Amino acid sequence: MTTVRLLTDEQASPQAREVFDDIRKTRNTDYVNNSWRAMANHPAMLRRNWEKAKQIMGPGTLDPVTKELIYLTVSIMNDCEYCIHTHTHFARQKGMTEQQYAEMLDIIGLATEGNRMMTAMQVPVDERYQVR
Amino acid sequence: MTTVRLLTDEQASPQAREVFDDIRKTRNTDYVNNSWRAMANHPAMLRRNWEKAKQIMGPGTLDPVTKELIYLTVSIMNDCEYCIHTHTHFARQKGMTEQQYAEMLDIIGLATEGNRMMTAMQVPVDERYQVR
Amino acid sequence: MTTVRLLTDEQASPQAREVFDDIRKTRNTDYVNNSWRAMANHPAMLRRNWEKAKQIMGPGTLDPVTKELIYLTVSIMNDCEYCIHTHTHFARQKGMTEQQYAEMLDIIGLATEGNRMMTAMQVPVDERYQVR
Amino acid sequence: MTTVRLLTDEQASPQAREVFDDIRKTRNTDYVNNSWRAMANHPAMLRRNWEKAKQIMGPGTLDPVTKELIYLTVSIMNDCEYCIHTHTHFARQKGMTEQQYAEMLDIIGLATEGNRMMTAMQVPVDERYQVR
Amino acid sequence: MTTVRLLTDEQASPQAREVFDDIRKTRNTDYVNNSWRAMANHPAMLRRNWEKAKQIMGPGTLDPVTKELIYLTVSIMNDCEYCIHTHTHFARQKGMTEQQYAEMLDIIGLATEGNRMMTAMQVPVDERYQVR
Amino acid sequence: MTTVRLLTDEQASPQAREVFDDIRKTRNTDYVNNSWRAMANHPAMLRRNWEKAKQIMGPGTLDPVTKELIYLTVSIMNDCEYCIHTHTHFARQKGMTEQQYAEMLDIIGLATEGNRMMTAMQVPVDERYQVR
Repeated sequence: MTTVRLLTDEQASPQAREVFDDIRKTRNTDYVNNSWRAMANHPAMLRRNWEKAKQIMGPGTLDPVTKELIYLTVSIMNDCEYCIHTHTHFARQKGMTEQQYAEMLDIIGLATEGNRMMTAMQVPVDERYQVR
Repeated sequence: MTTVRLLTDEQASPQAREVFDDIRKTRNTDYVNNSWRAMANHPAMLRRNWEKAKQIMGPGTLDPVTKELIYLTVSIMNDCEYCIHTHTHFARQKGMTEQQYAEMLDIIGLATEGNRMMTAMQVPVDERYQVR
Repeated sequence: MTTVRLLTDEQASPQAREVFDDIRKTRNTDYVNNSWRAMANHPAMLRRNWEKAKQIMGPGTLDPVTKELIYLTVSIMNDCEYCIHTHTHFARQKGMTEQQYAEMLDIIGLATEGNRMMTAMQVPVDERYQVR
Repeated sequence: MTTVRLLTDEQASPQAREVFDDIRKTRNTDYVNNSWRAMANHPAMLRRNWEKAKQIMGPGTLDPVTKELIYLTVSIMNDCEYCIHTHTHFARQKGMTEQQYAEMLDIIGLATEGNRMMTAMQVPVDERYQVR
Repeated sequence: MTTVRLLTDEQASPQAREVFDDIRKTRNTDYVNNSWRAMANHPAMLRRNWEKAKQIMGPGTLDPVTKELIYLTVSIMNDCEYCIHTHTHFARQKGMTEQQYAEMLDIIGLATEGNRMMTAMQVPVDERYQVR
Repeated sequence: MTTVRLLTDEQASPQAREVFDDIRKTRNTDYVNNSWRAMANHPAMLRRNWEKAKQIMGPGTLDPVTKELIYLTVSIMNDCEYCIHTHTHFARQKGMTEQQYAEMLDIIGLATEGNRMMTAMQVPVDERYQVR
């Protein structure tokens, strides 16, 4: 159950449908997933988020799998069920291997434990690791 | 100010000094940073965390920069000042470019906003993104 | 599934039932929702939380909708499914418009992204924004 | 200490300086604060965040103080020192009274405690608070 | 730097001073620490939090050190610098040994890593661990 | 739905089955719960986490119930549904009383509210609570 309706193409406003069409074209698929159908209740939010996602997750100096690994890591840290499922799917779709997935999980476990230890003991940054 | 003392080589127990020596050898440096000197108050914790870090951050199918980007992303999400400074340093040391850094920041911003929107509206996972 | 039973009026202790009665009277409804029925396992906790909620969410210098927007914002940041659903409901009941809801979501997205960027780059507070 | 340099007007790229100029004009001040000087290292990020902030924090159906209260609440939940200081300042500048500030703090305390209790006991959402 | 002034006894209102006096008497000390001096700006908040702290941290079925370990664990997870320092101090004052401190840190590390792994892989609760 | 398969004994690798056998023997039960069956997809992760859990949650200077209370507190703060259910079960199995459970919940509520107040007002640590 959502706090807003997931809008079908018929229920969406013309501005929202325009974004749906760009999603379909950019991703080369007929399917528009629930995240966009929820945001369609607020067309300006839908457009801004889609434009941002299209640009940031598009070609850059980081390869597509690395980008998805970072997105997935954030989603795990924020405990976002929707985002964990969709971006685990996207990462695999773009070529993430199970070994890479295991390494990402290992690093998340290592880092989150290390973070809490440093915070618990309030360890100060070594002078040499400070950027001037 | 820490909640424990940062142990010098002289103050550390023989078991802790052994780990310090392995850190120096593995990283090919004389410098042992504060995180290990804090953990040295609890030698078993020091050894377990160092062995784990050495293995997980060592060679794998993800390249060293990608590993650091994931570690840094977790540290930013956990708001760990110590870890943000050291791992931004390590990432650059291993070759992270400023453009890659900017792309990582962009993805963190995109994902953390998207996470909160999905959580706020309690959007259900599309059937097709569920793993069976 | 909860970790404790949701107590019916019959199962609740006299002290808990007294709080149930005050909830019914204060809210002018027969319905006592699950949060209170869970807390009823610990009557002192139930009473303290209800008295606090009644006072803090009651009349003040912030209007009822603004109070609910702040409550909802915290619940989204803490990823509390129960609280997101109930307080989205309460906010609408007290008059929150869909436009206000969209603006709140926009601010949450803006702020949470901005927060992470400042944390990632460890930006120091400008002298002029420090309170003396 | 930041992980990037805070760029002066002279160090910033022409694209970044253009945003600085718009910040000065929009806010009717000569002062460009550290958050923008840090983002100026990545001009596209700077522009996107400024345009978004200008639009979202500008006139809407929520009044300026309410908008700042929501922004501040998110910043407190994310524990962002920079954002807490700047947005407490902005909220007061826009008219937040000390009584409103105290009420916001009270609601944050009430909600964050309530959130954790519901999460701890895994209380299910009452059917009547579910949106269909 | 705080966002409010830390009130001295002279600056505090009579209601706030009354709470200061009870803190002194209950703790058998002349010293009133900064947390209460900050809350003194909002006397009702000060009283409510002090009464609650006095009751909850007072005698119960959990011993004083265990209570402080739980308080400290929450503070570490919330990354509250003030609370980490004060409650590490209080825990030691009430008898926490360095070995107990190390065990608490170990459990926090173990649990926070385990939590993230379960969340990352979205593991469902075994039927037998569900309370009916 | 998980993002990986929960491996049965037949599907697990010999290394993973060896860990399953040690879990059965250590806990004196036939049942291997879902967390280990999920980690079995990555046998090295499975072994490392099991060895760590066996050591840290085993005999020490903190009693078994206190250890579970700390584990549970972390899980509640991280909002890990799987871990909340299993460790509430384990805590009760090891002897946690309902009164102790209520006291733990009270301390979590008290601490998480106090943490946010200190963070919101950016209260500095009193000199006397700083460890040198």
